[in-house]
Amino acid sequence: MTDLSDPLPLAQALIRCASVTPADAGAQDALAGMLERLGFTIHRLRFGEIENLFARMGTDGPHVCFAGHTDVVPVGAANWHSDPFGGEVRDGVLYGRGACDMKGAIAAFVAAVAQHGTQGQPRGSISFLITGDEEGPAVDGTVKVLEWMQAHSQVPDFCLVGEPTCPVRLGDMVKIGRRGSVNMTVTVHGTQGHVAYPHRADNPVHRLVSALAALTAAPVDAGTDWFEPSTLQVTSIDVGNAATNVIPAAARAALNIRFNDAHSGASLTAWVRATLARYAERFDLDVSISGESFVTKPGPQVEILRRAIQGATGIDPKLDTGGGTSDARFIANYCPVAEFGLVGATMHQADERVPVAELRDLARIYRDIIAAFLA
Amino acid sequence: MTDLSDPLPLAQALIRCASVTPADAGAQDALAGMLERLGFTIHRLRFGEIENLFARMGTDGPHVCFAGHTDVVPVGAANWHSDPFGGEVRDGVLYGRGACDMKGAIAAFVAAVAQHGTQGQPRGSISFLITGDEEGPAVDGTVKVLEWMQAHSQVPDFCLVGEPTCPVRLGDMVKIGRRGSVNMTVTVHGTQGHVAYPHRADNPVHRLVSALAALTAAPVDAGTDWFEPSTLQVTSIDVGNAATNVIPAAARAALNIRFNDAHSGASLTAWVRATLARYAERFDLDVSISGESFVTKPGPQVEILRRAIQGATGIDPKLDTGGGTSDARFIANYCPVAEFGLVGATMHQADERVPVAELRDLARIYRDIIAAFLA
Ligand SMILES: [Zn+2]
Ligand SMILES: [Zn+2]
Repeated sequence: MTDLSDPLPLAQALIRCASVTPADAGAQDALAGMLERLGFTIHRLRFGEIENLFARMGTDGPHVCFAGHTDVVPVGAANWHSDPFGGEVRDGVLYGRGACDMKGAIAAFVAAVAQHGTQGQPRGSISFLITGDEEGPAVDGTVKVLEWMQAHSQVPDFCLVGEPTCPVRLGDMVKIGRRGSVNMTVTVHGTQGHVAYPHRADNPVHRLVSALAALTAAPVDAGTDWFEPSTLQVTSIDVGNAATNVIPAAARAALNIRFNDAHSGASLTAWVRATLARYAERFDLDVSISGESFVTKPGPQVEILRRAIQGATGIDPKLDTGGGTSDARFIANYCPVAEFGLVGATMHQADERVPVAELRDLARIYRDIIAAFLA
Repeated sequence: MTDLSDPLPLAQALIRCASVTPADAGAQDALAGMLERLGFTIHRLRFGEIENLFARMGTDGPHVCFAGHTDVVPVGAANWHSDPFGGEVRDGVLYGRGACDMKGAIAAFVAAVAQHGTQGQPRGSISFLITGDEEGPAVDGTVKVLEWMQAHSQVPDFCLVGEPTCPVRLGDMVKIGRRGSVNMTVTVHGTQGHVAYPHRADNPVHRLVSALAALTAAPVDAGTDWFEPSTLQVTSIDVGNAATNVIPAAARAALNIRFNDAHSGASLTAWVRATLARYAERFDLDVSISGESFVTKPGPQVEILRRAIQGATGIDPKLDTGGGTSDARFIANYCPVAEFGLVGATMHQADERVPVAELRDLARIYRDIIAAFLA
């Protein structure tokens, strides 16, 4: 039997399942087997074609949950120097798709539970929220598991997401929140005409350009206590008018806003709509909110993470809210959440890898976090 | 033999040639036949696939030239109520493609010469500069005939272009100039990146939008003595970036400027380039000058037109420089030029037509113009 207190063989077992979203390839089976041995009660939760699981050990509070995903991004076009699904160790480094994002972190948390050493009967509860749909559309994964957890009174007191948060060295960054993200498509309508007679036409390109110039003229804000300034990027403008002597009837633009806790998807929609209305009489605005911003403000829970990281690495982690989005945006609707995992430098790339020592350090940090939360 | 002093049968003969650019369909033969009967010396000038002609009667000055085109635009998709190439007269109205643009005017000038009544021996000279390539690319037409005329010492003292200039009633407008037209394509280069990390990218859309907003924020000018204000129209912006999370590497826009005599194609290019440079470090600017602006300022020559029109119609024509471009922009490089012809309301449309009385009135006006120029 594999030693459950060492994350290396656990990470290798998970990497050897080629679980490229939406495939599971046995990854959740492998994880469920480990958790059963540790005394967890397993709930396999299949939504659509996606395998997910919720596993819990203990019934009382406090309840700390580890959230992650067993799915991985594709191997990619670039050549690997070893089998992406081989889990090979070379010179003390574990190679494979998911090594840092985030089968390594899952293995580290499993090992941390084993090291915590109170199989089956912890003070409080430890749980795993594991999806197979984080790298994909994220529709049949964390969102639905959370709904199931709420319906079954399994919402934890705190959730730690194991995404690779560290830019350079293990311990250098904890994500205590994420910016929100909203995509908008605007279509400004005008009146088609001949360029020689612009007074008989109404050029929607001019209206759109003026509105976009106003939206991008100044920063969206100056940042907040825990967030960098929000940013607005116009990603495309497409008119598609090949006739150089024709004023077109409509002009379309796409933009994305990454926003901090000074805004919501709704408040930004209102701002963009009002700005457009200053320049255009007739326009359509389609809005798709990928996620609202959220933050778990520094306090006792974040302090537990910080102390465990400092104890194991000597590094005082930066408390950050930047970067892209993660499933933490869904969890934040239910309970406080923070993210801490491996160094993400090779995630989504060829030869994704993690030093074995880093994996074991992460397991120790997770162990200390568990101990502190359940103390 | 057709009566050469009545423009109706002449216009019908020309309309019955289906001379849709670049086809000639016998139109220049028909015209040459009329002019030979009047005593003109004919020079048939074929350039590429285009039939053109220069015809002159008399050898001395003053030399007045009539310029026009025998080619017509296609019939179009809409239904006609008579054969577009039939030259049918119904209720005193002549129907057919080219009736007003501008076979009718050519016929009226031929009739005017016949009415002037000094076959073969006018005081001064009368000439025709007729192209079959005005509605097309205008490459093998008027431009090349003018080069031939200069090489053969045939440049006139004044040129009257027979385009349909009148908006509502015969006599209500003379074009004494035209605005210039320049097309520009600008490509702004930036640095591609992810919308979540805009500080690592350089969004060319923002730079382009700011530059275009600056270019369109205020009128290009307030107009000049004989011109309306110049106008700039952005006709298209095309980025073609379908990825909502990607900042694109480049952004492209097309614009057209119709400009008055306060500018030249070169001065506008410098202005656009300088404005772009305020917002973008790396950009390409492609410039295509369709024509410079020109004006024949009111003086004795324009006064001849005005008096002839007032005498026949009682209307004081507006001296205008608006609208699109015509071959007059080429002629202006060689001699003073003005444009006067029929009412253009049905040009390029289905059921293009001209009242026969209007055609005969135009012939009388042209006759008076010839008489005054050669007096
Ligand atoms: Zn991940
Ligand atoms: Zn014409």
